[in-house]
Amino acid sequence: MGPHPAVAAIRLAVRRVLHDILNDHHASADRPASGEQSPHERPPSPLVLVACSGGADSMALASALAFEAPKLGIRAGGVTVDHGLQPGSDLRAEEVALRLRELGLDPVESTAVTVGRDGGPEAAARDARYAALDAAAERHGAAAVLLGHTRDDQAETVLLGLARGSGTRSLSGMAAVSGGPGAARRYRRPFLELDRQIARKACMVQSLPVWDDPHNTDPAYTRSRLRHEGLPALEKALGKGVVEALARTAQLSRDDADALDAWARQAEASVRDAVGLLECAKLYALPPAVRRRILRQAAIEAGAPAGSLFARHIEEVDRLITGWRGQGAINLPGKVVAQRQGGRLVIRQG
Amino acid sequence: MGPHPAVAAIRLAVRRVLHDILNDHHASADRPASGEQSPHERPPSPLVLVACSGGADSMALASALAFEAPKLGIRAGGVTVDHGLQPGSDLRAEEVALRLRELGLDPVESTAVTVGRDGGPEAAARDARYAALDAAAERHGAAAVLLGHTRDDQAETVLLGLARGSGTRSLSGMAAVSGGPGAARRYRRPFLELDRQIARKACMVQSLPVWDDPHNTDPAYTRSRLRHEGLPALEKALGKGVVEALARTAQLSRDDADALDAWARQAEASVRDAVGLLECAKLYALPPAVRRRILRQAAIEAGAPAGSLFARHIEEVDRLITGWRGQGAINLPGKVVAQRQGGRLVIRQG
Repeated sequence: MGPHPAVAAIRLAVRRVLHDILNDHHASADRPASGEQSPHERPPSPLVLVACSGGADSMALASALAFEAPKLGIRAGGVTVDHGLQPGSDLRAEEVALRLRELGLDPVESTAVTVGRDGGPEAAARDARYAALDAAAERHGAAAVLLGHTRDDQAETVLLGLARGSGTRSLSGMAAVSGGPGAARRYRRPFLELDRQIARKACMVQSLPVWDDPHNTDPAYTRSRLRHEGLPALEKALGKGVVEALARTAQLSRDDADALDAWARQAEASVRDAVGLLECAKLYALPPAVRRRILRQAAIEAGAPAGSLFARHIEEVDRLITGWRGQGAINLPGKVVAQRQGGRLVIRQG
Repeated sequence: MGPHPAVAAIRLAVRRVLHDILNDHHASADRPASGEQSPHERPPSPLVLVACSGGADSMALASALAFEAPKLGIRAGGVTVDHGLQPGSDLRAEEVALRLRELGLDPVESTAVTVGRDGGPEAAARDARYAALDAAAERHGAAAVLLGHTRDDQAETVLLGLARGSGTRSLSGMAAVSGGPGAARRYRRPFLELDRQIARKACMVQSLPVWDDPHNTDPAYTRSRLRHEGLPALEKALGKGVVEALARTAQLSRDDADALDAWARQAEASVRDAVGLLECAKLYALPPAVRRRILRQAAIEAGAPAGSLFARHIEEVDRLITGWRGQGAINLPGKVVAQRQGGRLVIRQG
């Protein structure tokens, strides 16, 4: 008898990602980085870490990694981050580390971080967590770090992006593969097309104890309200396929945003004059979607912080091109000023 | 003392659109269509119709049109459509027509339609309604038809598109200007950036009687569930700005979809060989977002009905390009078949 379907599903998802990591690993090994290594010498077996909070998603992920990695000659380890936000969180982290060791993962470490305040509590915790995971990956020379985000998390992320109203890129959710400092493909999300319910079920049938982070049900957190009230109400109105539709929207939006960013990068060179200033007439001839991306990028390069630059800022700058009636300089975040001068658009720190 | 702010807001929105219609009208008059008309002869004053259900949004629109049109030398008329879906709907339509006449609109007509079943009750009613409005516009030689959709309607439309999960175009909501048969800019939505509450308020302070369509609160209708349960729950989770963010998403998505469609149209010619077949190697080199648009368009041109062609169909066809392992022909809606033959992609009715 094979494993329970939920266990089979999580293992398949992890196996696919491990194959992909192995391909990357061997490809990089075939390109000798230094003269010392012979091109035919196989690199040591790669290490893959799982980031585990002790919750159902990442415990399921850890169990599947522990099962699949040895069969592919991959070493499997785990990291749990103690955010220090609740009393006893250090003991909790030690307990998670213990469970990861019991699964056979090695190395396993618990790492404590200090969560700042930048960007709100959720963003600050995330920043601290990724910094710790990056550091752990570097320290252990890991080929990749697996994250337990499910399709439900993806749907929530799309809705959070929708609430910002800042367009296609903000609807593109989380990537299946994303980078960390110095490692373009460090983070992998094997469960991004898997239901949260399946991860939970896989823990249950494997008798894995699961810890439910109280933050996940605390209505003070936007994501928690979305999970427990917003999404269920939306499903009731629109039908059961909403989570799947949101996840598909993420993928399609990501592809669209990538294509338009590429177009904007390419077009950007062609709209500058000999001294590098943006020519209004040439900008005018571009589709609005491409033109606004060029304007946004120019503002960021001039020093405007990307996170404070909203669609309405870019629209106002755009009107210097499309609705020119002699308006004055436009103030952007980061003390950046945009103004039209003799058919050129000048964007610089004022 | 000026008008109430709500009345001022609806009038301003209509005035802007009327100016735009006048510009179009004069521009078309400056291009003599036949030898008989002198280019310096002004055309007769244009007629603008309002489509009015008797609900708050379209009654407010009718009142603003009646007020603004004469000042610009525009004739203002109205049409109300009797969908025949409720007992007494004919009397109701006559009552709405009477109110439009009382506002000073002329011509005013009530037109009865037969609602079919294609695409579900909401889509069938919409198709019948637009056919009747197109016919009325042709009959009266109207320059434009105004529709009362508000920013709240736009937000709902974006969420309905999101539930389809079919990408950027389906998130682009309704256009401020859209076409009918033979008239590229027939329909105008002056209230698309205005809150429903403002239209309602404008009716109240002008003592305009308003009819609330029972369909709008009937939980059997998806849009009604969204309006009364889905959106409020989303606002509770994400904050008050959700409607505005959704409306902005519509605009940004429309611009992005337009730009990508233009790219796909342009790229399409360059990926065909001498006999017009799609070359797989050239398709492969395109960004996925552009490639999938070309594949979708090719399937539609081969006879696949656009409404039945989903993202998953196009993904499967795309794998003939990006994940070729000798797979067989792929069946698409409308008996269209896609297959790879000697480095070419052949899409045709089978």
